[in-house]
Amino acid sequence: MRAMEEKICAEGTVISKDILKVGNFLNQQIDTVFLAEIADEIARLFENENITKIMTIESSGIAIAAAAGMKMVIPVIFAKKNKSSNVDGATYQVTIHSFTHGNDYQAVVSRDYLKPEDKVLLIDDFLASGNALEGLVQLVEMAGATLAGAAVAIEKKFQGGGDELRARGIRIESLACIESMDEDGIVFTTVNNGV
Amino acid sequence: MRAMEEKICAEGTVISKDILKVGNFLNQQIDTVFLAEIADEIARLFENENITKIMTIESSGIAIAAAAGMKMVIPVIFAKKNKSSNVDGATYQVTIHSFTHGNDYQAVVSRDYLKPEDKVLLIDDFLASGNALEGLVQLVEMAGATLAGAAVAIEKKFQGGGDELRARGIRIESLACIESMDEDGIVFTTVNNGV
Repeated sequence: MRAMEEKICAEGTVISKDILKVGNFLNQQIDTVFLAEIADEIARLFENENITKIMTIESSGIAIAAAAGMKMVIPVIFAKKNKSSNVDGATYQVTIHSFTHGNDYQAVVSRDYLKPEDKVLLIDDFLASGNALEGLVQLVEMAGATLAGAAVAIEKKFQGGGDELRARGIRIESLACIESMDEDGIVFTTVNNGV
Repeated sequence: MRAMEEKICAEGTVISKDILKVGNFLNQQIDTVFLAEIADEIARLFENENITKIMTIESSGIAIAAAAGMKMVIPVIFAKKNKSSNVDGATYQVTIHSFTHGNDYQAVVSRDYLKPEDKVLLIDDFLASGNALEGLVQLVEMAGATLAGAAVAIEKKFQGGGDELRARGIRIESLACIESMDEDGIVFTTVNNGV
């Protein structure tokens, strides 16, 4: 998505070769006009997939998932980090390691909202090591549901997570895919998902 | 908002006189058709207020804030719970006590995204004791910004937070306002915000 690459170049900040800040429009402050464009693009990419449910994990992916869900007229569920009093009854749970925060956390979703008959589109803001997305894939598998694929706003391809998931046959669509980056600039690439 | 009351009656579950579960459509699974209706109503309520920014706190309010922000064409910012590596630079911070979880947490927002010239609409899913919303009000005050008011999907009026904030002259709009509830049913009420 050319608009995402342009937005990153115009408003993102490369902090180091691993860290890109996009707080200005994506994950601290949300540019809602641009959010609608993101939703349109995700809807276009997965329009013929008969998705029945969108799943994300709190909290940076929620706005994108909600916008895509409104555009596609599909319910959104979000996996909670750690079991709270707001998720009761039977759940599916996985342990995910966060490189950003250097800890492990549980991702929890109620069995009431993820069913074997669902066809699920995963959505998140960033794809780097792929641990969070891998956790969501496992939740889909635990439920016996079908995985349609994943849409992420920004993939840091050099961190390998996207390619690992693609190697397992999972369709991963990143609206901007970063090959490498440093203080001098960002090199984008494109990925052939074979679709 | 009659539709919110009807939705709560049709799909919500009263667990006790204090706890209402709406995971089916609002905070675990999101009914995105209904979410668009919520956004329309919030936009209608605050349409003449010249809002420049919507603020919520992660994570249950994000979908509602994002939907309202798209409808109103206003950027959304979300206060993070606890300072993470994703919020760097100068911040505003407040300590909020959670009755739900029985602990204290920090709500943090970057100074880059909340400015003295902003007129801010606060959005959240629930208003009960009012602690979370009170924290957001303090963040607005710290920034020297103007508070337009708050919109919440569901107010549990008997827990007092909404009335405390109204007594201070803050406009609080709840799309459904619960006077009391138990296993036999829910009594809704309306609140005159004087506007």
